[in-house]
Amino acid sequence: MSAALRRDLARLLGGGANAGERVICPVPASSPYNADATGAWRGLRGRADAVVLPESDEQVAAVVGYCHAHGLGVIPRGGGSGVSGGACPIEGGVVVSLERMDRVLELAPELWRMHVQAGLITAHVHRLARESGLFFGPDPGAAEQSQIGGNVATDAGGPHAFKYGSTRHWVMGMGMVLPHAGIVRLGGASRKDVAGYDLTGLMVGSEGTLGVITDVWLRLIPAPEAAAALVAFLPDERRGCEAVQAAMTSGVIPSALDFLDASTLTLIAASYPGEVPAGAGFALIAEVDGGREEVERSRRELTAALVDGAAIQVDVHDPRAAWRWRSGASVAVAAVRGGKVSEDVCVPLERLGELLARFAQIAAEAGLPSCAWGHGGDANAHATVMVDPSDPAQMAAAERVAERLFELACELGGSLSGEHGIGLVKRNALPLQLRGPALAMHRAIKDCLDPDGVMNPGVGQPQTH
Amino acid sequence: MSAALRRDLARLLGGGANAGERVICPVPASSPYNADATGAWRGLRGRADAVVLPESDEQVAAVVGYCHAHGLGVIPRGGGSGVSGGACPIEGGVVVSLERMDRVLELAPELWRMHVQAGLITAHVHRLARESGLFFGPDPGAAEQSQIGGNVATDAGGPHAFKYGSTRHWVMGMGMVLPHAGIVRLGGASRKDVAGYDLTGLMVGSEGTLGVITDVWLRLIPAPEAAAALVAFLPDERRGCEAVQAAMTSGVIPSALDFLDASTLTLIAASYPGEVPAGAGFALIAEVDGGREEVERSRRELTAALVDGAAIQVDVHDPRAAWRWRSGASVAVAAVRGGKVSEDVCVPLERLGELLARFAQIAAEAGLPSCAWGHGGDANAHATVMVDPSDPAQMAAAERVAERLFELACELGGSLSGEHGIGLVKRNALPLQLRGPALAMHRAIKDCLDPDGVMNPGVGQPQTH
Repeated sequence: MSAALRRDLARLLGGGANAGERVICPVPASSPYNADATGAWRGLRGRADAVVLPESDEQVAAVVGYCHAHGLGVIPRGGGSGVSGGACPIEGGVVVSLERMDRVLELAPELWRMHVQAGLITAHVHRLARESGLFFGPDPGAAEQSQIGGNVATDAGGPHAFKYGSTRHWVMGMGMVLPHAGIVRLGGASRKDVAGYDLTGLMVGSEGTLGVITDVWLRLIPAPEAAAALVAFLPDERRGCEAVQAAMTSGVIPSALDFLDASTLTLIAASYPGEVPAGAGFALIAEVDGGREEVERSRRELTAALVDGAAIQVDVHDPRAAWRWRSGASVAVAAVRGGKVSEDVCVPLERLGELLARFAQIAAEAGLPSCAWGHGGDANAHATVMVDPSDPAQMAAAERVAERLFELACELGGSLSGEHGIGLVKRNALPLQLRGPALAMHRAIKDCLDPDGVMNPGVGQPQTH
Repeated sequence: MSAALRRDLARLLGGGANAGERVICPVPASSPYNADATGAWRGLRGRADAVVLPESDEQVAAVVGYCHAHGLGVIPRGGGSGVSGGACPIEGGVVVSLERMDRVLELAPELWRMHVQAGLITAHVHRLARESGLFFGPDPGAAEQSQIGGNVATDAGGPHAFKYGSTRHWVMGMGMVLPHAGIVRLGGASRKDVAGYDLTGLMVGSEGTLGVITDVWLRLIPAPEAAAALVAFLPDERRGCEAVQAAMTSGVIPSALDFLDASTLTLIAASYPGEVPAGAGFALIAEVDGGREEVERSRRELTAALVDGAAIQVDVHDPRAAWRWRSGASVAVAAVRGGKVSEDVCVPLERLGELLARFAQIAAEAGLPSCAWGHGGDANAHATVMVDPSDPAQMAAAERVAERLFELACELGGSLSGEHGIGLVKRNALPLQLRGPALAMHRAIKDCLDPDGVMNPGVGQPQTH
């Protein structure tokens, strides 16, 4: 099949001498396009029949139409930083990588908006906004690798989602290619639109299972003048969770309110830009932003609330230093045994303490060291077990821990995922959360917009066999 | 049919001596349940077969199931303040009024959230938040009459949507009754949730065409400590629209940025709490909020930007006084000829001036006096013609003006509605905005979740005959 497929795809991508560069077919087993970051962490890899690197909406539409006609799946791919297997050709098919569609179509600072192609790197979106005195809220961890289209497809979050909302709050419209209908434009440059169902919003977080996002209209706001980070150390998890609520009753709206549990804190204590106090068994990283006077005042009020909330020590940092420290957690945790299996469940805020305690118990019963960090104000925990990835028994145990974690999150009235999405990893857990008719509604949406199952086969729906 | 229908519905509503109070059947032609506010303004009235006032999710489910089985439409009804005919039994059916389902199920100030039944009056939501030191952003005009469920069903906005987003930004989850599936819970108390398609978001703004919303989980934030309103007078529309952009490049994020055009300003000049300067042909009402120092500073910076932007005069007011003044516009405009036909199109911000100028031209060509006011920062205009409602020629001319306005808004890349929704009034204009596959997607969503067309017949979809 390969030769014919390559020839057909090259023709669809404009033919000419360079069209061959835009098609990889056959795809070597070792190709990075066969996995997203879930490959590195959990060994989840597929094998694409082909990879295409289109340069226009029309080329995307041509490829999707071809795949539809030929019974091939379409796997949209952004930066490949996903950790739920949302961009993994597990059933073969054609990977459509948006990396060459990275143009800025419009940057209108005076109108607080930006229109960009889906392949633009997230960090560039931030940079363009910043250089215009503006601010784009979502700040997922892999911003240097991820693409804005992938962020939209997964409704990416990050620490600042606490104040500023996840990606969906920043999307005004998009261009898409649908398997049955070709190119469609949803929403656009208007800041408000209640004409009909929120189709734009439905596409946000749909993980490439309904169509390929080719461009997005983003809302921006004026950048806050200043920001400060507070790092508060608490004696233990219980008082740490109480301190999250203390922060929320201080009257201040922190721009971020992250946490590190005792294990995570121990692992990155040495790189802390200061002195971790003796007796610290939990840390909060709170950011406040706004005008200079407001930041100063919020900092003061939040510090007072945290001290009342049993903080042993509260330090003030430049936010960049605090987040750099925090971002070391993922690597430090993975270094313990060489790998990690990390989920991102979310619960009602008052259940955070119970989630953390019971997760630690579940991991301990499985014989795996564990830790958790994440977005405390959103009660969105990166609950993690440390594993030797070369040990199948540990990997299997880790998957069982994940299953019990999903059950726990749903039992506590929470969600399987606050940020990473369902992908392949959590698809069979979806019925735990979407009870009764909700699961059927979820399936019905897929079936009505992609009845032949062209888009991202296997992703986002429970396996039926 | 009436006697049997009344008996059946009374039984479904719990039987007993009082069940009869919860059923109106037959429904007198003059019943307020036969129309929403579109009845008063545009004479749009239907005739329900019955009205029910359920008191529990189970009663709603029983009625919806009964209607489905008997081929009767279900018309969910909130406060009846809608102006697009979204709650109008135009094809008969059973009106399900949520007014008796107005309980506060949970108010958790320390967790920044509230869980309430759909029939709670919007103003009560605001009051409950305020009394807890918190804030709920959406502030639609009819907050004393509208219910929170209706606000969610229409994705209601208001002046503060400029900074705080429309209702959808504040909804974390809901309980619903679906025509095929009964009671379903979507989302809930978790602040983040990316597990599967955003079904909660899909229901927000769906105008009762997919199911009956019975309760909602709302996000809250700490109330801003202070706020101030600025009223700026500009010489004309062009410089008024430029001033909107000047405000947006000031570095300040106004919490609201409303406008009044020359005609509207003239009509309410006498009630202005101050002196309208000579030569004023446009006004902006900007609000700033936050900590006291921040408000003081934002006020200063915004005033400077507006003066640079050719403002003749900038006054500072208590926001309540400014909004009270502004809220008189609707009544004053209607008083000119006894009635008005007002639409709420939204365009990209840079097209606001063109929208206003061309709308005035369209109205003039139709021989009707016109005016416009609305949310300038969102370029969401309440474009209005003044009519004598007893004159069929004027009413017909007004409908033609509305049609041309819809065409204009779509030509300018905008939306048919920023706030009021599609309802019955704009259903046939929907294809102007949802081009190509988008309209088919919109229809497909309806058909997949309500295949028998039980919910809100006629609303939100173009007529096919």
